[in-house]
Amino acid sequence: MVKKDVLQVAILGAGTVGTGVYKVIDHLQDEMEHKIGCGLIISKILVRDASKKRDGIDESLLTDQWNEIIGNPDIDIVVELMGGIEPAKSYIMEALKTGKSVVTANKDLMAEHGKELLDLAEEHGCDLMFEASVAGGIPILRPLKHCLAGNHMSEVIGIVNGTTNFILSKMTEEGCGFEETLKLAQDLGYAESDPTADVEGLDAARKMAIMASIAFHSRVTFNDVYTEGITKITERDIAYAKEMDRVIKLLGVTKNTKDGIEIKVHPMLIDKNHPLASVNDTFNAVFVRGDAVGDVMFYGRGAGELPTASAVVGDILETARHIKNGCTGETGCTCYKHIPIKPISECKSKYFVRLQVEDRAGTLASISSVFGNNHVSIERIAQKQSKNGNAEIVVITHKVKEKDITNSLTILSTMPLVKSVDSVIRVY
Amino acid sequence: MVKKDVLQVAILGAGTVGTGVYKVIDHLQDEMEHKIGCGLIISKILVRDASKKRDGIDESLLTDQWNEIIGNPDIDIVVELMGGIEPAKSYIMEALKTGKSVVTANKDLMAEHGKELLDLAEEHGCDLMFEASVAGGIPILRPLKHCLAGNHMSEVIGIVNGTTNFILSKMTEEGCGFEETLKLAQDLGYAESDPTADVEGLDAARKMAIMASIAFHSRVTFNDVYTEGITKITERDIAYAKEMDRVIKLLGVTKNTKDGIEIKVHPMLIDKNHPLASVNDTFNAVFVRGDAVGDVMFYGRGAGELPTASAVVGDILETARHIKNGCTGETGCTCYKHIPIKPISECKSKYFVRLQVEDRAGTLASISSVFGNNHVSIERIAQKQSKNGNAEIVVITHKVKEKDITNSLTILSTMPLVKSVDSVIRVY
Repeated sequence: MVKKDVLQVAILGAGTVGTGVYKVIDHLQDEMEHKIGCGLIISKILVRDASKKRDGIDESLLTDQWNEIIGNPDIDIVVELMGGIEPAKSYIMEALKTGKSVVTANKDLMAEHGKELLDLAEEHGCDLMFEASVAGGIPILRPLKHCLAGNHMSEVIGIVNGTTNFILSKMTEEGCGFEETLKLAQDLGYAESDPTADVEGLDAARKMAIMASIAFHSRVTFNDVYTEGITKITERDIAYAKEMDRVIKLLGVTKNTKDGIEIKVHPMLIDKNHPLASVNDTFNAVFVRGDAVGDVMFYGRGAGELPTASAVVGDILETARHIKNGCTGETGCTCYKHIPIKPISECKSKYFVRLQVEDRAGTLASISSVFGNNHVSIERIAQKQSKNGNAEIVVITHKVKEKDITNSLTILSTMPLVKSVDSVIRVY
Repeated sequence: MVKKDVLQVAILGAGTVGTGVYKVIDHLQDEMEHKIGCGLIISKILVRDASKKRDGIDESLLTDQWNEIIGNPDIDIVVELMGGIEPAKSYIMEALKTGKSVVTANKDLMAEHGKELLDLAEEHGCDLMFEASVAGGIPILRPLKHCLAGNHMSEVIGIVNGTTNFILSKMTEEGCGFEETLKLAQDLGYAESDPTADVEGLDAARKMAIMASIAFHSRVTFNDVYTEGITKITERDIAYAKEMDRVIKLLGVTKNTKDGIEIKVHPMLIDKNHPLASVNDTFNAVFVRGDAVGDVMFYGRGAGELPTASAVVGDILETARHIKNGCTGETGCTCYKHIPIKPISECKSKYFVRLQVEDRAGTLASISSVFGNNHVSIERIAQKQSKNGNAEIVVITHKVKEKDITNSLTILSTMPLVKSVDSVIRVY
């Protein structure tokens, strides 16, 4: 039991989320005593330029000196909202070493250095919480770690990037192309001027690495995730998906199989009746499967000032209660297994393949035989009229190994009768 | 820090959920040390008849003597899965008074005596957890209490009864009637032989009372909930709903308004694009709205042996970690406000009303004027041909007060030209 009347919090970073956290904590002042058993105030905010005015934030809290935070023994909780690896990582490590608990929203950091940081927190008896690093405001990490702790989880599937979900939803609703929709997302502030991390699936990959580590109790890092973005998805693919009563989503998929952990982020055709199919616009959702609970889904806003602040403040209040009750460091790193990562070449999936071929007799048979010779069994194949004397062939395979589809496509793309391989999209 | 190598759990009741908890804990034995920092075993199971054989349960654990549990100082956690008010309540109170933490799945008890029990737990520094009492395996209470603690919640809407959701889903899919579908649900084991608590909305009302208390930090009990079941819903209502691109669901709705807490359980027409509309069969879902997080939804299995056991075991492991770290009793009753309950007569809603009337000139005008005279403004009204020389009038109102619609219907039902008021269903 810590005998303090008021706990003190320092925030690193006064960007969108930092400002949100400031507002939310301010809004809770009257209830703080009830929520954590004492007061809680923000006493310092670390910024690059302390002289710059920031709307609604008390200027006297701003500092550009890390030392004013790390050197102040009255500060109990450090909230890291700067993003990126450095100096965030060094600051967090210094904070933990001086016994300050840490709350962070930093997915880049947790997806790469989670184990090191969590071990350090445990060593120093501190909390390190990071709910906001995955799926913004949606409670997912604490439910996985605590509420679902009685389960052996087998699968986590997520729509965990709002930008790409907005783009694919719009393309589906309006029937327009990727570039045009990306531009719209940028105009609306849903996509950054350099959209790479979102549209190439890197952001989603980081979140999936964090969730897989927690769900399967085995460390998975960003580099373990096979990643494919949505830049190649066309109006035509989306139209075909509709024809098949499916929608295309950028899904993070991770499974704990007997051959190791599968983990990948890529566009996927899913049945329109699957609960994830109706998750549209910038919404996120995470679908998990456990041996006891069965299927559970969590849905909400995956980004934004206040939704992300909601997750950060939830962690701050929890940490504060732990400080007050003398039980920080109760939950450290939960990765107590060492499960190998299954190579992507061995992962199985159904595939949708779309090819342009010469429109002449025997083409369909030639294409089919390439798949057959490479252990790719076909569920459906259809030839459609195309322009310029070509024909379009659309193939849906059964569940086959990634390496077999790759081999098939390598051979197909060298065949003179194949003009182009236009789409290769996995099917859930 | 409690220096025990093994924590001991007693389970009260070896019914469906009790058996599930036994199985899940058995299945976790190899990982217990990692999960809670020590071992955890079930050392006693209280049953009515200890001589009765139970599949897969070690007979030596069974006892019909409460005293063997309450009198055993080595038992750390009591898990109450008997259901009903007594003797469950007395047993829980005795357990807390001797310093044993308690986990329960008992919604009846928590919806009526939650405050008394939580206060007692706090007084004795014990945990009292009850995640499984609402929506089975879906993590909802801990997310509300902890992850979303930074929010002022304004609304909780839930499909929290699997039996009625199964019945309404089937009626919608197959176009069949209530009685017939109830029979099917009973045959499949989804409805009990006395289905009252489910089909009259009482079960859902208990869960809503528990969630409202947590969401709004103000005690709401079962008796505060206005409840209406699904027994009057007909194929015809469902067909009209479809026509309007809506579905009928039994919804629990609670809102924190400036005039007090609205809390009710009743069938409702919701737009087919609302996330709750696609929650079908025995699935449950809870939709919450907070000022920071916005809209969040939790979806999964609301009942069943293993899903409910998943929630119970999550609570057991959390309590065990608290015991191990000496911080049980950290979160007691979170109702620190006293918000009045808004009388149902003052609650506003849109309504769908279906009447059989005499098919003659002026009827529509007479009906409309009754609504108008009672402050019920109409969004749409349509007259359709019916049989026996009658006509059917279908009305959709704007948002109006319950008392105004009640007054209108009282007057209408005394008018000779009104043959019957067939349906009154709220519209979301």
